[in-house]
Amino acid sequence: MAISNFVYDLRELKFVLKEWLDLEKLLALPPYQEYYGVDEIDPILETTFKIARDVIGPIAKDTDQIGARFIDGKVVTPDSFKKAYATINEAGLGASNADREAEGRLPYTIIQANMEMMSAVNLSFIAFWGLTTGAISVIQQHGSDYLKQKFLPNMISGKWSGTMNLTEAGAGSDVGANITKAFPTDTPGIYLIKGNKQFITTGDNDLVENIIHLVLARAEGAKDGVAGLSLFIVPKYWVEDDGRLSRLNDVICTNIEEKMGVHGQPTCSLSYGENDKCLGYLIGDPPDADGKASGIAQMFTMMNEERLNVSLQGLGSSTEAYLKAREYAKLRVQGTRFTDPKGPKVRIIEHEDIRRMLMVQKATTEALRALILKSCYYLDLSHDSEDPEERNFAEGMFQISNPMCKAFATDMAWSLISDAIQIHGGYGFIKEYEVESLARDVKISSIWEGTNYIQALDLVGRKFTMSKGQVFKNWITDISTFIENNKGSVGFMQEFEIMNEALDDFLAIMQQIQKYGQEGRPQTMPIFATRILYAASILYCGRLILDQALLADSKLKTLGGNHFDAKFYTGKVASGCFYVKNVVPQIAFIRKVIQIGDTSAVDLDEECFG
Amino acid sequence: MAISNFVYDLRELKFVLKEWLDLEKLLALPPYQEYYGVDEIDPILETTFKIARDVIGPIAKDTDQIGARFIDGKVVTPDSFKKAYATINEAGLGASNADREAEGRLPYTIIQANMEMMSAVNLSFIAFWGLTTGAISVIQQHGSDYLKQKFLPNMISGKWSGTMNLTEAGAGSDVGANITKAFPTDTPGIYLIKGNKQFITTGDNDLVENIIHLVLARAEGAKDGVAGLSLFIVPKYWVEDDGRLSRLNDVICTNIEEKMGVHGQPTCSLSYGENDKCLGYLIGDPPDADGKASGIAQMFTMMNEERLNVSLQGLGSSTEAYLKAREYAKLRVQGTRFTDPKGPKVRIIEHEDIRRMLMVQKATTEALRALILKSCYYLDLSHDSEDPEERNFAEGMFQISNPMCKAFATDMAWSLISDAIQIHGGYGFIKEYEVESLARDVKISSIWEGTNYIQALDLVGRKFTMSKGQVFKNWITDISTFIENNKGSVGFMQEFEIMNEALDDFLAIMQQIQKYGQEGRPQTMPIFATRILYAASILYCGRLILDQALLADSKLKTLGGNHFDAKFYTGKVASGCFYVKNVVPQIAFIRKVIQIGDTSAVDLDEECFG
Repeated sequence: MAISNFVYDLRELKFVLKEWLDLEKLLALPPYQEYYGVDEIDPILETTFKIARDVIGPIAKDTDQIGARFIDGKVVTPDSFKKAYATINEAGLGASNADREAEGRLPYTIIQANMEMMSAVNLSFIAFWGLTTGAISVIQQHGSDYLKQKFLPNMISGKWSGTMNLTEAGAGSDVGANITKAFPTDTPGIYLIKGNKQFITTGDNDLVENIIHLVLARAEGAKDGVAGLSLFIVPKYWVEDDGRLSRLNDVICTNIEEKMGVHGQPTCSLSYGENDKCLGYLIGDPPDADGKASGIAQMFTMMNEERLNVSLQGLGSSTEAYLKAREYAKLRVQGTRFTDPKGPKVRIIEHEDIRRMLMVQKATTEALRALILKSCYYLDLSHDSEDPEERNFAEGMFQISNPMCKAFATDMAWSLISDAIQIHGGYGFIKEYEVESLARDVKISSIWEGTNYIQALDLVGRKFTMSKGQVFKNWITDISTFIENNKGSVGFMQEFEIMNEALDDFLAIMQQIQKYGQEGRPQTMPIFATRILYAASILYCGRLILDQALLADSKLKTLGGNHFDAKFYTGKVASGCFYVKNVVPQIAFIRKVIQIGDTSAVDLDEECFG
Repeated sequence: MAISNFVYDLRELKFVLKEWLDLEKLLALPPYQEYYGVDEIDPILETTFKIARDVIGPIAKDTDQIGARFIDGKVVTPDSFKKAYATINEAGLGASNADREAEGRLPYTIIQANMEMMSAVNLSFIAFWGLTTGAISVIQQHGSDYLKQKFLPNMISGKWSGTMNLTEAGAGSDVGANITKAFPTDTPGIYLIKGNKQFITTGDNDLVENIIHLVLARAEGAKDGVAGLSLFIVPKYWVEDDGRLSRLNDVICTNIEEKMGVHGQPTCSLSYGENDKCLGYLIGDPPDADGKASGIAQMFTMMNEERLNVSLQGLGSSTEAYLKAREYAKLRVQGTRFTDPKGPKVRIIEHEDIRRMLMVQKATTEALRALILKSCYYLDLSHDSEDPEERNFAEGMFQISNPMCKAFATDMAWSLISDAIQIHGGYGFIKEYEVESLARDVKISSIWEGTNYIQALDLVGRKFTMSKGQVFKNWITDISTFIENNKGSVGFMQEFEIMNEALDDFLAIMQQIQKYGQEGRPQTMPIFATRILYAASILYCGRLILDQALLADSKLKTLGGNHFDAKFYTGKVASGCFYVKNVVPQIAFIRKVIQIGDTSAVDLDEECFG
């Protein structure tokens, strides 16, 4: 079994959770006040770190090199998975966190900080409970008491796992094109399910006793498109009312995909009802008189949280890649310094371009972490705050940052991990160093749970216009107020000047897009949506990481340069300033391009592409 | 055996070679005039296309999924490789092109256009003759007549293959750290070789009868560092003077690497002289009285050409990915148009963001092709022109564009192929669609033959200052003259304005770096070298592809919109304008960042990285 070299940076995570985010305030709210104080955070993170390092890390090689296999019609996972899966559940790091009604539940912010580490060390493995988590949320929010009692306890304990069945061969991003059918039976609420699903992560596996599929299907008589879809609970084994598992429910895994990465995750093709014996429970009501059903709305209650999970895949993988590159660069001796060519050989961390790449990785991963964990924090407040106005504000801030988290973190991951590979030189390309696998694993994250283009349309088309633009206004005010309040900070004047220009640039982008709309050029919005999402994400990341830099700077001033934490805080100040000086000016480039307003990509006759 | 779906765009290649580059002029020069006219180009390209599609394409799946294996101490390639390798040699597409003394040899420009297609369809496979090519060049330029006669004929025919042995475990980018030793024997020119080499591509294989290793080693008494390295010819089997292969020459392949991609290429660890029986021929003279040797200089005679080959790996892979994405986007039906949400389902090529990504890929690959093939053209002129001034000018233009070709094409490939995967949605992530493998294969190209940072230092530190800056001046004049001469072109006024600003921005970057140097901040050069290389490449790509757009526009005007080629030319105009409007303004962002001049990455205490 391979030795894990997991070197996650708990100091950074603790800074974000305990020093930067106001977790004291959050933990003082009713769901948490009896159970957790800020002092409990360290042991929680440290336990997760150890489990990531000692339990999930050592199976990473099996995950990638043996992977999930399809043998004699069954999914077989590596032997090492079984014990690790059991440990995760025993440690309370599995699907149990999805139970939002449990006493003593953790806030999302802390759950996701844990999830970041587990995603980092083994992106495949988390799927075995990550999908269950989503399924639990849906059943808990929309299922009848009967269904909750029947399915939730064993899903929460990890004895059974859950899946999300949206995709079909002809229905990927276009969920409404689903053709799986549901026919009512004599028993109200129970339907015969018939159809084929594809790309179903952990759709079959040998870690659990039963698999609870949440399946989107169209009940007889329902309308076309997404509005006609209902959601069904379809267990692999039928569950009798006494809890006993009886017959196989005519759900067959017909194949698993050979993929670029996440080899440990079985990605299944599932056939439902080939022998007309597949039964499922309808969640909620049957389609109404107009044929409208509520499956999509039910599914979407957990979509934003799932997208947060995906953003953590981008963040976790990039961070792990960065830390591996940093450790490698500290050890590898190669060449002399550029400024001292006749001097001694040095470790490559002393070479300027290696430093540049490390700094890009350090600053960007920290900016993404700020973005994502702040977003989790808003999600918690939106659920738990006692002040309805605060709940509302936080909900808006969560909604607007959600597509940025998902798309920006996962797109950045691809280039950040490339830098980490580059730092390793030839060793980065060979499997033994386990950095190339991070790139292979993370590529899926820009595609699943809504492609990054869907995120961009969501941001620009929906989130920016939510509540008549109030959410957008709040978000801009958050940034402009931050700049206004801090622009005089000694040592950060240049950074705030750059931020101020960036905010102007971003507002100019929004005006320009509005102008194009008024001029009857609606296609400009989707053409530039991805670039607007980048500009928004960079701006907001700049705001958040500069905020962290200011905090670190004030800590430094209080503690003095000789304090044992001084290097850490100095590094935080550097990350903030580096991001603002090296990345944020990109917004001006995006502004320029949007003002040029080239729409040739869509104007061009398709045949001109060849 | 898998079916190849190679869909390379010969129309574009023919445009570049026959319409844009002045190949007529080149083919009228002495080495070619008796053998080729412009009319011969089409059949050459078409033959290569067919061989790429029908011979190399069908083994791509074997390449990736079986790959080169290490069995009982021997490298074993897939069975399908043997026949394909033979066909390549028979067709004259293999190492025979390296023979620069042969009558009727092809110009580099055409050889590399062929190489682009072969790289595109199977990046692994070309290594079996690509490295031989380099070895032939070195022997042909620096070997004695005895060595040439002994080794070249069988290498040129493809019966034997060649390798380049630079890298050792402790000597990657720092070639001078080589510790492999060479001890003189009683026979002048023959040395005992002792040491270990690593990452030796095709260091062992079962396609050929003998392998001719070119090995960098330090002869006894030679100085430390690169200056003390000599180059030796070390055959796997000793070659008797009658041509017979006799004993195994104590060169052992001890292992091959498990890699992210290029699985078909055996990447070997080689042990030389473990039993003190490994003999090699010194190329050229022994180290002089000061211990200076000429191995590195000999090796570097083919380095720029090898780097061109690597640039083609970036270009070929990106182009193949683009073409696969384009074909997929034309077929895949998903969702409705953004501007017609109640309309019919459309093929995804009708979605704005898919169009944006396709256009980025089309324009960028065409810009890279312009850059690389123009560079090959200059290389040909630098060898073949009868006018010494023109040779000199062309040599400078080749030298300055060489690091851009290598680094920019290979870095761009990583993001371009990501877009191609993204267009495929979930299918992009599974192996069956053979687009993810392009990303896995191409990652090595930013690392080998000099990392992209080495290219950036080469550009900014060496090439920009070559011949007292005359080369740089010629290169800038080429761009400024192009802008000056064409800025009034109807339909392109905005493009030339943008180019003009970009040139100003680039010159400002150079002034800024010079100023930093004068201010005693030499570390700014390596810190910003990569970004300067990007700015230079983008500027030059803009100049070249806009030149193509002007040419296409004039063809369009002559032929009229109903001509069968009108769509192609319209697409070329669109590519040029798109690149200038959407990519070129990035130079202003780089200027801004360099003027901010943040050096925190190197100033920061190493411990602050954690």
